[in-house]
Amino acid sequence: MLPFGKDEYLERIENTKLRMMQFGLDVLLVSDPANMNYLTGYDGWSFYTPQAVVVALALDEPICIVRGIDLNGAKVTTHLDESNLIGYPDEYVQNKRKHPMDFVAEELEARGLARGTIGVEMDAYFFTAACAEALQQSLPNATFKNAYTLVNWIRMIKSPQELAYMRQAARILEKVMAVAIEAVAPGRRQCDAAAEILAAQARGTAEFGGDYTAIVPMLPSGIGTSTPHLTWSDQPFARGEATILELAGCRMRYHCPQARTVFLGAPPQRLSDAAKVVVEGLNAVIGTARPGVTCEEVEGVWRGVIAKAGIVKDSRIGYSCGLNYPPDWGEHTISLRPGDKTVLQPDMTIHVIPGIWQDDWGIEISECIHLTETGAEPLARTTRELIVKD
Amino acid sequence: MLPFGKDEYLERIENTKLRMMQFGLDVLLVSDPANMNYLTGYDGWSFYTPQAVVVALALDEPICIVRGIDLNGAKVTTHLDESNLIGYPDEYVQNKRKHPMDFVAEELEARGLARGTIGVEMDAYFFTAACAEALQQSLPNATFKNAYTLVNWIRMIKSPQELAYMRQAARILEKVMAVAIEAVAPGRRQCDAAAEILAAQARGTAEFGGDYTAIVPMLPSGIGTSTPHLTWSDQPFARGEATILELAGCRMRYHCPQARTVFLGAPPQRLSDAAKVVVEGLNAVIGTARPGVTCEEVEGVWRGVIAKAGIVKDSRIGYSCGLNYPPDWGEHTISLRPGDKTVLQPDMTIHVIPGIWQDDWGIEISECIHLTETGAEPLARTTRELIVKD
Repeated sequence: MLPFGKDEYLERIENTKLRMMQFGLDVLLVSDPANMNYLTGYDGWSFYTPQAVVVALALDEPICIVRGIDLNGAKVTTHLDESNLIGYPDEYVQNKRKHPMDFVAEELEARGLARGTIGVEMDAYFFTAACAEALQQSLPNATFKNAYTLVNWIRMIKSPQELAYMRQAARILEKVMAVAIEAVAPGRRQCDAAAEILAAQARGTAEFGGDYTAIVPMLPSGIGTSTPHLTWSDQPFARGEATILELAGCRMRYHCPQARTVFLGAPPQRLSDAAKVVVEGLNAVIGTARPGVTCEEVEGVWRGVIAKAGIVKDSRIGYSCGLNYPPDWGEHTISLRPGDKTVLQPDMTIHVIPGIWQDDWGIEISECIHLTETGAEPLARTTRELIVKD
Repeated sequence: MLPFGKDEYLERIENTKLRMMQFGLDVLLVSDPANMNYLTGYDGWSFYTPQAVVVALALDEPICIVRGIDLNGAKVTTHLDESNLIGYPDEYVQNKRKHPMDFVAEELEARGLARGTIGVEMDAYFFTAACAEALQQSLPNATFKNAYTLVNWIRMIKSPQELAYMRQAARILEKVMAVAIEAVAPGRRQCDAAAEILAAQARGTAEFGGDYTAIVPMLPSGIGTSTPHLTWSDQPFARGEATILELAGCRMRYHCPQARTVFLGAPPQRLSDAAKVVVEGLNAVIGTARPGVTCEEVEGVWRGVIAKAGIVKDSRIGYSCGLNYPPDWGEHTISLRPGDKTVLQPDMTIHVIPGIWQDDWGIEISECIHLTETGAEPLARTTRELIVKD
């Protein structure tokens, strides 16, 4: 049932332990659901209660600690020996007097892991301030170190099997985007378009099914296109208005995201002009990105293209993406922006999304690219242009 | 465009300020997206970057601080004056050298709010350990207090308009559950059933559309029914196996959840027997729950029913629910379990979900109930039984 061979999981754990040694960690407490999945295969919508994968230099295999009722889920989805799967009693759940991290601390203590240096993912979504506080209080003899994104940086370089899933996600995305473009029509309710998009995402292809995406379909319309993160309402699409579609295909939790902008009717000149600039800039980025070039150099090429057109954009134009859970398909490692001097490497996968949002309008045209040995290739093949529907 | 009248938002803010005074807070920093929405209307899938609503006794209106590119989203979705909407520069996003909470701290400082007692939601999903650390370092003259669930407890009692949305969510759910039961069929891929369920959730009814749910459709099947939080795969449903459907309808971010169990073929005796006990227990809970009774008393009634049948269950059988964002539709306040002495009040809404998960099988039959003046009423009207399909 596991999406990867045991060897691949073991290699990931080995790479994690190497970084732990470089970073001076005896123990790493992994809270990010994507990192938990990456190291153990664990998969379930249980990250709404605290849980952890414990990697320790002193232990061959990680330990996976989840809520008791999720223990059978760990048995079904992880490669770990059952002796390393631990469920905590339900009284720890959403209880002001006890915290699941108290239980995790006891487990660390019981295994002699409570006195060394423990890495924690300080800025991971589900590693709350209360999680850190509970651990610090329960483990007074441990030294805590921020190991946020330690595993994320390993995840950034994709294996052949990971790339295979991302290509499957791209095939799903192509179908999803085609459905979405068809679904945006004058007088049609946004929620009805969302229904078709969500169905296409789950259905996938006849060969392989789709998974839920870490971000739900974004479809800001009209004035809503001035900002990227509005979801749908039950208002109808209107002729004379633009709609931004930021969507992904997802396969085995690997994402291929993409954005397109649809205009119903004859687009205003400023939107057509902006589309040309964005496509030109995006093409320039794809033509520039290759191993050896830095993130900020790639962004600089984009900046050069838009400067000629008199457009100013202050936000980053891309980020690493792949395996993930809600609320984000981004990996929180590299960003395409000034100051990010990370050198691109083969088998990175980056969502290049040079969105432009102005006071009352906006445009997004994006691609998820794969860094090859010599350049960059978009994973999906949707036409790269402003989509105009009559 | 706002789902509630301005008066209702003002009342919520007033109630929040009253609790802040009781709790000795000058300032409350709200990070939970549901609480942000509750107080201001703010709605967008932007909670993957840190954001905050600041309620201060010294300020008439809250301040809403989001990422710069989400500022126009705040203009579109909140009732706040534009002067109280603040966007932070994009360089704060996923940048190891800066944290968005540094920016929030500066804004508090600029408004003279940096020296009093500041409440923070220590265990809210998106208030990470790094958020707390950044605030504490940037605001050395402030005293921090854990105000987790302060707003959640206010949210627990629903207004007439909130109940109207939950009833609409229930109408959506009824359609969703009917679609789901139809979609679970031998040989059909789980992902194809998920596609129909997701579509029905978004489509809603002809009168009102549906919204994305805070938890994606759960449909553990076969051995997967031994645990509650598995999502779908592209494996087909098999004759002779059970599938658990835990689904919700969502309207304006208000949820009506429900679980049912479907068996394809002739169910084994132990499952039919368990279904009878669960339905009997659920009916007993619905018959008992009313204002004045405590949470643990309600759970005790359930416990009495299953004890007769020799079933043991250690996990809670329900929780408050309503307005929410991923990853949870529960409100993290009351739980139906031993030790929870909260007295039920009119217009609470509770998901009563007495799931039973054993080594290799499980069953869930649940209802979302509304506490009336004199009793409890299920919001949705799906037949309450094990669903057997030939």
